[in-house]
Amino acid sequence: MEKGLGMRLHSYIQGCWKAGRGRPVPLLSAVDGRLVAEVSSEGFDFSEVAAFGRQVGGPALRELTFHQRALLLKSLAQHLLEHKEEFYRLSRETGATRDDSWIDIEGGIATLFAYSGKGRRELPNSHVYVDGEPEPLSKNGTFVGQHIYTPMTGVAVHINAFNFPCWGMLEKLAPSFIAGMPCIVKPASQTAYLTELMARRILESGILPKGSLQLICGSIGDLLDHLSAQDAVTFTGSSGTGLMLRRHPALLRHSIRFTMEADSLNASVLGPDAQPGTPEFDLYIAEVVREMTVKCGQKCTAIRRALVPRAFVQPVIEALEARLRNLVIGDPWIPGVSMGALASRAQCSEVRERVNRIAQGARIVYDGAATQLPEGPLARQGAFFAPVVLYCDSPFENSQVHDIEAFGPVTTIVPYDDGAQAIELANRGQGSLVGSIFTGDDEFSRQLVLGIGAWHGRVLIVNRDCAAESTGHGSPLPGLIHGGPGRAGGGEEMGGIRGVLHYMQRNALQGSPTTLSRITGKWIRGAEPLTKPGHPFRKRLGELEVGESILTGKRQLTLADIEHFAKLSGDRFYAHMDEAAARANPFFEGRVAHGYFIVSAAAGLFVDPAPGPVLANYGLENLRFLAPVAPGDEIQVRFTCKQITPRETEDYGEVRWDCQVFNQAGVLVATYDVLTLVAKH
Amino acid sequence: MEKGLGMRLHSYIQGCWKAGRGRPVPLLSAVDGRLVAEVSSEGFDFSEVAAFGRQVGGPALRELTFHQRALLLKSLAQHLLEHKEEFYRLSRETGATRDDSWIDIEGGIATLFAYSGKGRRELPNSHVYVDGEPEPLSKNGTFVGQHIYTPMTGVAVHINAFNFPCWGMLEKLAPSFIAGMPCIVKPASQTAYLTELMARRILESGILPKGSLQLICGSIGDLLDHLSAQDAVTFTGSSGTGLMLRRHPALLRHSIRFTMEADSLNASVLGPDAQPGTPEFDLYIAEVVREMTVKCGQKCTAIRRALVPRAFVQPVIEALEARLRNLVIGDPWIPGVSMGALASRAQCSEVRERVNRIAQGARIVYDGAATQLPEGPLARQGAFFAPVVLYCDSPFENSQVHDIEAFGPVTTIVPYDDGAQAIELANRGQGSLVGSIFTGDDEFSRQLVLGIGAWHGRVLIVNRDCAAESTGHGSPLPGLIHGGPGRAGGGEEMGGIRGVLHYMQRNALQGSPTTLSRITGKWIRGAEPLTKPGHPFRKRLGELEVGESILTGKRQLTLADIEHFAKLSGDRFYAHMDEAAARANPFFEGRVAHGYFIVSAAAGLFVDPAPGPVLANYGLENLRFLAPVAPGDEIQVRFTCKQITPRETEDYGEVRWDCQVFNQAGVLVATYDVLTLVAKH
Repeated sequence: MEKGLGMRLHSYIQGCWKAGRGRPVPLLSAVDGRLVAEVSSEGFDFSEVAAFGRQVGGPALRELTFHQRALLLKSLAQHLLEHKEEFYRLSRETGATRDDSWIDIEGGIATLFAYSGKGRRELPNSHVYVDGEPEPLSKNGTFVGQHIYTPMTGVAVHINAFNFPCWGMLEKLAPSFIAGMPCIVKPASQTAYLTELMARRILESGILPKGSLQLICGSIGDLLDHLSAQDAVTFTGSSGTGLMLRRHPALLRHSIRFTMEADSLNASVLGPDAQPGTPEFDLYIAEVVREMTVKCGQKCTAIRRALVPRAFVQPVIEALEARLRNLVIGDPWIPGVSMGALASRAQCSEVRERVNRIAQGARIVYDGAATQLPEGPLARQGAFFAPVVLYCDSPFENSQVHDIEAFGPVTTIVPYDDGAQAIELANRGQGSLVGSIFTGDDEFSRQLVLGIGAWHGRVLIVNRDCAAESTGHGSPLPGLIHGGPGRAGGGEEMGGIRGVLHYMQRNALQGSPTTLSRITGKWIRGAEPLTKPGHPFRKRLGELEVGESILTGKRQLTLADIEHFAKLSGDRFYAHMDEAAARANPFFEGRVAHGYFIVSAAAGLFVDPAPGPVLANYGLENLRFLAPVAPGDEIQVRFTCKQITPRETEDYGEVRWDCQVFNQAGVLVATYDVLTLVAKH
Repeated sequence: MEKGLGMRLHSYIQGCWKAGRGRPVPLLSAVDGRLVAEVSSEGFDFSEVAAFGRQVGGPALRELTFHQRALLLKSLAQHLLEHKEEFYRLSRETGATRDDSWIDIEGGIATLFAYSGKGRRELPNSHVYVDGEPEPLSKNGTFVGQHIYTPMTGVAVHINAFNFPCWGMLEKLAPSFIAGMPCIVKPASQTAYLTELMARRILESGILPKGSLQLICGSIGDLLDHLSAQDAVTFTGSSGTGLMLRRHPALLRHSIRFTMEADSLNASVLGPDAQPGTPEFDLYIAEVVREMTVKCGQKCTAIRRALVPRAFVQPVIEALEARLRNLVIGDPWIPGVSMGALASRAQCSEVRERVNRIAQGARIVYDGAATQLPEGPLARQGAFFAPVVLYCDSPFENSQVHDIEAFGPVTTIVPYDDGAQAIELANRGQGSLVGSIFTGDDEFSRQLVLGIGAWHGRVLIVNRDCAAESTGHGSPLPGLIHGGPGRAGGGEEMGGIRGVLHYMQRNALQGSPTTLSRITGKWIRGAEPLTKPGHPFRKRLGELEVGESILTGKRQLTLADIEHFAKLSGDRFYAHMDEAAARANPFFEGRVAHGYFIVSAAAGLFVDPAPGPVLANYGLENLRFLAPVAPGDEIQVRFTCKQITPRETEDYGEVRWDCQVFNQAGVLVATYDVLTLVAKH
């Protein structure tokens, strides 16, 4: 079903595209006021929508392994990239320039790619995520603990903001899907047409299992009433709406996970060293202007408060003015236009009203309204708003600047006298998504991070060395957490695998190592070894089993061997070479074998040398030398298959081996994991 | 100020012991009804209490490093252990036997010891916790990300339940203090006298910095109204009270972290293999009886639902009856008494009322009320309650057993027909702190864990191999998370360092590697190396600096060296020995040096051999071989001090070194961390 401008938006629920009944809400172009679409979700049975996600989407997603789910995201990203021009065209109606849309569209697609890569690199190719090391709980080791995560069995309801109709959806879908959780996406109505278009492309690709994605264009009605403890709700938007959702009786009653990411009064601090003329000063001015103008300032991460040393206030005002004066505001589709429109004319009124309120405790030092707005029909029908800079001379006496957010191209300059004041002022935002510091003085950065860290989700420090590659104040990244305490909502999204775990339940498992190994698919020391015929190096990936183990032959490490090793390696550390000096060391009773020799000789014991499925040793982890090996001691290795990670798209996989080296008295002298690549065929 | 029975309990606020005004609430002995104490907190200014914690306690705690805070806990634990008999004596009034009190008193003290150990082993000896590896964010590496945690700057308000007046306080204090957060403890009034006594011993020890612990005996009044985003609230108790706290306007408005741990309808499953006569059957019966009788069944983790194969219902009833019949109920101070009293006579009425409600969908198959209760004055004044076993024949039709918690020595037997039913019934509790499975069949365990994992915080699997060392169904442990989804409150406590991080704020830092290294105290690859005179192995702990770096000389690895290494180590893997076979390997173009040889030769390059401050190499981490080293290649090492962890109580500390091995073309061939012990003097 293709759709032109002015069509009724459909919702995708229970496997079908459906239009809501009743009087729809008209959605107007931010640029020229034309009707873009209409929206209504009246008449849907939201209890059925939730049930469909749980009963159809959840089981289908959870049947796949983490890697298989991650590969779906990659296919999806590739598919969406092919359709990107279509998204760019429609995005114009939201008021976005091509650069603005790039963040939303390609930034969103990049998030899918990033999660796909992380999912395959950092998660096992199975269904259970093992969290941390086994926890010893008993003297003899017959009883241990292990934390794991398993997928929640409900639906994730994602309620998004109007400013990022694509990225907002995709950054939440990516971690949910990798976790194995079906999603119900509810875009903000104002720009829902773009989300709906992208959702259509996603759904018609057939890449996702049935039921794993539903879309509600319009109100979510009584959906939240039908949620329970296995469901999750995320919200991006204003703190007012967020508070309303958070206090919903069903969420409170069932302890439903609620992740909120709200607009905040983010501050950017210019360091006292970054005086006019320094690269950091120029970088700061460029960043404040960028944050004011990208998406017309409609970013929850934008710089709302520019904290500058009191002595630099005038130069900062002048530098901002010089830049802002050249801004070209207009139809974002026209080349040369550097700033588009707000999302709607209602937003224009709201931002103006907020500017006026901030101005009760500050004065306007720049306002482009009189000279920079477009003329003609755009002026009458579009949602254009010129940049405004305010200056708050007494920021400790006037709270407006710290409390009121004008969600548009608006920032307020706030002076500070010293680092302690900068910290106090930044924290007056009562919780921010991001703070930034422009300085070449690392000690100032350190002091500020320790002071503002507890009030911020992300802190960016820019200096001349990193500026060229900096991703900027306003950009959340898939590998970093996005969210902040207090006013910013108290939530966290993304942060790589951290974000996936929001959609899973942590369990503390307790039991015998053998039982826990069976459940987690990762061998735990103390579990019964599986003795099977044949050396494990002779087995292909599919033939190996977790727990398969050999006890090697023994080898004596003689003093001559140690001397020999010292000569060959060049490592003549006194503890290996000088009996008297070694004896004086608090940990040794005389000369000892090199740790590197122990692991080398251990490999000599466990390696089966002929060509076979084992392709390479690509690393080693968690090596600990637990007891010294004296000349004449005999070592022996217990070598056990610990974890098998087949690669979906390669002809091999990774095998992790547990390696325990004992001496002739049965004392454990070294333990580590050996990492190998093993062929499938 | 020493206090006898019947005294007005004091609160410790703003550095002083104070009694509340007004009409106090009398607290009666659970055993004989005598007045133990009176309690009131009327007239306190709770806004001042919160401010005192933030302004006095917080800064004092945060001035200490993680290790210093951890050592405070150890001193505290040792101090409390010296006073334990006093706590045992008073604990009798709560109705607890000596065994019950042991869990509360010594279990609580053990939690302090455990956190002290974990804090020093797993956290750096500094103020910033580094979370995960640096996140690459740029092509040239000038801009990177790093997650850290810094302490929240508010107060932690801990609202505890009546059943564990000591452990309940200590298990929350331990992670809070390590995080650097001052605490306000509010014990449940009924048993607050014991918490107050322990708090007195803590405070008079002088071990804690001023302001880091305040105690409120009585109501918390309007304390929550005075909290904001940097504060945290934890609650243990009934889900009703929890819901009331969670919906408190201040908590919602400021996104205040709220951790709730509520009573839940925990299930224990007897496996189909565990038929009468098996060790697992006997272990199951013993555990159900233990969970019914320990603390008189007043544990939020107790087994409320015994899920057994339908065929074993009768044998289970008979076995439970045989055990319960021998129970001796009475004054817990008298030798031979195996079960004490509920906390109060009001509890007796409440538990009886709940039993009656459960019985609407089940029948009572055992009730000791007629024969087992003590007689005489204890019967009239004490809060004794005899064990009750119910049987619910149709657990899918009768929801009472899954919904109603009788917080006493009460359990209900629930039959199931197969594994899928067992899963469904266990999950009908709508979120539990713990579930357990008694079975010798690991495949059954695996199936159940995957099925019930999402609804449980902890899952225990008991079989004959681990039973002797099992810590039991009902015992939360400091190293494992305690909490559960849904009805259990959706919170998590403890879990080792996981619990510490609840009281800290995560930040995503972004900037140049040099800046981030300076802030975190942990060197990040790409940061500018510090070139200083002298080999780093010649420097004592206090002389070394993070970032201090050397670039070693070069060494060629010849084919003769490789042959030589193969002979000495015994590792004759074909990729090192056989040109044609190596060439056939997808990753190599011919024979390559052993990875173990590369790291050994690298040590030959960076080790400075003479006796000096470096005492030992105790391990190696995160070794990756990134490119093959061919015969004739030349290697060189960049060796950089990455992290320094002085030990507070030892004459040495740990130094972690970053090791990068390059070939003659400047290609990175191996990277790893070397772990050493370095002397302070």
